[in-house]
Amino acid sequence: MSAQKKLIMLPGPTNVSERVMRAMQKPIINHRGKDFASLLRGIQEKSKHIFQTEGEVVVLSSSGTGGMEAAVWNLIRPGDVAVVPVFGEFSQRLAETVELAGGTAVRVVSDFGSAPSFDDLEGAVMKQGKFKALYLVHNETSTGVALQYVQDAARIARDHGAFVVVDAISSLGGYSIPCDKWGVDVCVVGSQKCIAAPPGVALLSVSKRIEEFVKGSPPKTRYFDLARYLEYGTRGETPFTPALPIFYALDEALTELAEEGLATRVKRHLECAAALYDGVEKLGLKPVADSKIRSRTVVAVAYPEGTDDGEFRKKLDSDHGIVVAGGFGPFKGKVFRVGCMGLVTEDMVKRTLAAVSECI
Amino acid sequence: MSAQKKLIMLPGPTNVSERVMRAMQKPIINHRGKDFASLLRGIQEKSKHIFQTEGEVVVLSSSGTGGMEAAVWNLIRPGDVAVVPVFGEFSQRLAETVELAGGTAVRVVSDFGSAPSFDDLEGAVMKQGKFKALYLVHNETSTGVALQYVQDAARIARDHGAFVVVDAISSLGGYSIPCDKWGVDVCVVGSQKCIAAPPGVALLSVSKRIEEFVKGSPPKTRYFDLARYLEYGTRGETPFTPALPIFYALDEALTELAEEGLATRVKRHLECAAALYDGVEKLGLKPVADSKIRSRTVVAVAYPEGTDDGEFRKKLDSDHGIVVAGGFGPFKGKVFRVGCMGLVTEDMVKRTLAAVSECI
Repeated sequence: MSAQKKLIMLPGPTNVSERVMRAMQKPIINHRGKDFASLLRGIQEKSKHIFQTEGEVVVLSSSGTGGMEAAVWNLIRPGDVAVVPVFGEFSQRLAETVELAGGTAVRVVSDFGSAPSFDDLEGAVMKQGKFKALYLVHNETSTGVALQYVQDAARIARDHGAFVVVDAISSLGGYSIPCDKWGVDVCVVGSQKCIAAPPGVALLSVSKRIEEFVKGSPPKTRYFDLARYLEYGTRGETPFTPALPIFYALDEALTELAEEGLATRVKRHLECAAALYDGVEKLGLKPVADSKIRSRTVVAVAYPEGTDDGEFRKKLDSDHGIVVAGGFGPFKGKVFRVGCMGLVTEDMVKRTLAAVSECI
Repeated sequence: MSAQKKLIMLPGPTNVSERVMRAMQKPIINHRGKDFASLLRGIQEKSKHIFQTEGEVVVLSSSGTGGMEAAVWNLIRPGDVAVVPVFGEFSQRLAETVELAGGTAVRVVSDFGSAPSFDDLEGAVMKQGKFKALYLVHNETSTGVALQYVQDAARIARDHGAFVVVDAISSLGGYSIPCDKWGVDVCVVGSQKCIAAPPGVALLSVSKRIEEFVKGSPPKTRYFDLARYLEYGTRGETPFTPALPIFYALDEALTELAEEGLATRVKRHLECAAALYDGVEKLGLKPVADSKIRSRTVVAVAYPEGTDDGEFRKKLDSDHGIVVAGGFGPFKGKVFRVGCMGLVTEDMVKRTLAAVSECI
């Protein structure tokens, strides 16, 4: 069917097992029937385990950004204030989305490659007093930085009466984020990152208080109207035609994850990331992020002076069959990013390091 | 892999060829790389042929409803007036979406199963004077009714300075809608209807004047921001991670369609629908829609008094392996709907009629 299969070391989409790929060959069915209801419920039950929640799970046929759009438009009304740490492309987008929805985004800013300190965030929250929601990008896919204080941030936000929304699109499954325990109201994850399914679906955990809020509020969007998804969900349906083959694949990938166990998968991500950072430094290369805030799932590395981004990645691909990503925004051409997610193993890390060493 | 393969006679999703299913097994690739750019451009070129346009084509990872959401939020600003014929579930939703975006929907209403007359629409347009956009659901999937005056409606709307948006989600490919010739600014189609790919992608044609309008206006939504899709499109990318396997399948399905030829596919739909309506009436059953406004792709049939919708469709499925859909809104339990789209053949129509005859 296809040319040689490559080793995908992108920060999503990532390598997908044969078993998950094959699941997409299951037959087309009626999405208003029993078989689909059972498929959807299976996805929801298995995801609840990953979100560590007893709340509901909404399955959207969209990318992760669509999931965050839903998380903003369902909560933010004109005049509402949201606090948003901004430290890369995706958190920047998130603050802008709050503004598109008519809200005011109170940005707690730090440079690309760094992260706002918890003290800075707490200062902004204290100064704000009551506010509507805290929007946290847990893992900045654009810079390889992960926030280390999700639990504490959720606590202070709740103390100020705010909803807590976490963009864990590229981290959940590689990190443990116990949503109920930490008080996370909405957590968003993409199908194509640590869960290792193909792209096309976003999963949202929805706490009881969010459920009450959205059911009691008029909708602002149709495609992303969470109340409608929750209502249809009670009978095992989605309001709009689902991306069925991706649902099949996601269901299988979640089964794979359950078989491995969440804790084991998290540990594997941790160990692979440690090996990757260690190897990168041994090659004399410099990770973008300080060791205290480094992401476990996206490893961003600065190019040595004079390296051509396009040439390096082309050579890695054509000579070694390994695909990594370039940099974003101010890091474009200056940084490459290695995904360390999903089915990643220490062997994949070794192969990647050996190839990087030859091509750099 | 799966149980016996069923004959899917739903008004979408529909039967998908083995060849298109297999395309989903192509490898995961970087959506910021050359291979993806060539995939996207292939989809766009082949769709332009179906839309009969020299404008751009935007490919969204969403259902058709997501496509219509994009068509509303990118054009309608608070205070704008849109004229919307309302004659079923999907046109009702569309009018509501105009209102969610802050617009005023001038509804031209007729009962479920009928269609507003052209005179009524023209009257509303004349009364309105200048307005922002005409939103036409070409084919009401919920009732099996198709509007017969898209070209004339587009003409009068343009005469009043309005944009023309056509929801052809369940009809394009089964009908010919020459967008440029008729002056349709945005036309929306779903992957899982007459194109016969799996669900998960919506295609939008975008006329030059819409392109100018959206590029000159601040965005109102992020996930559905057409200007961003057009900008990324120039370098063969989508702004957000695409539902890659569905893109592969859609590309293959569009190739299949090109091989058959648009005119031949349209003719096949016309002939199959004629055979289906004829057969239904010979069984003594009554199509919902009057013969002048009957849809060629969705055949809605009234149950004889006393038929149990659930039992009938269950028997059709378990005894004959044929899947049809139930009714919507006021037609729930009173009507069944047969999809006549995509790969439909006269043989499939015969099998369906024979099975309906036994089960009714």
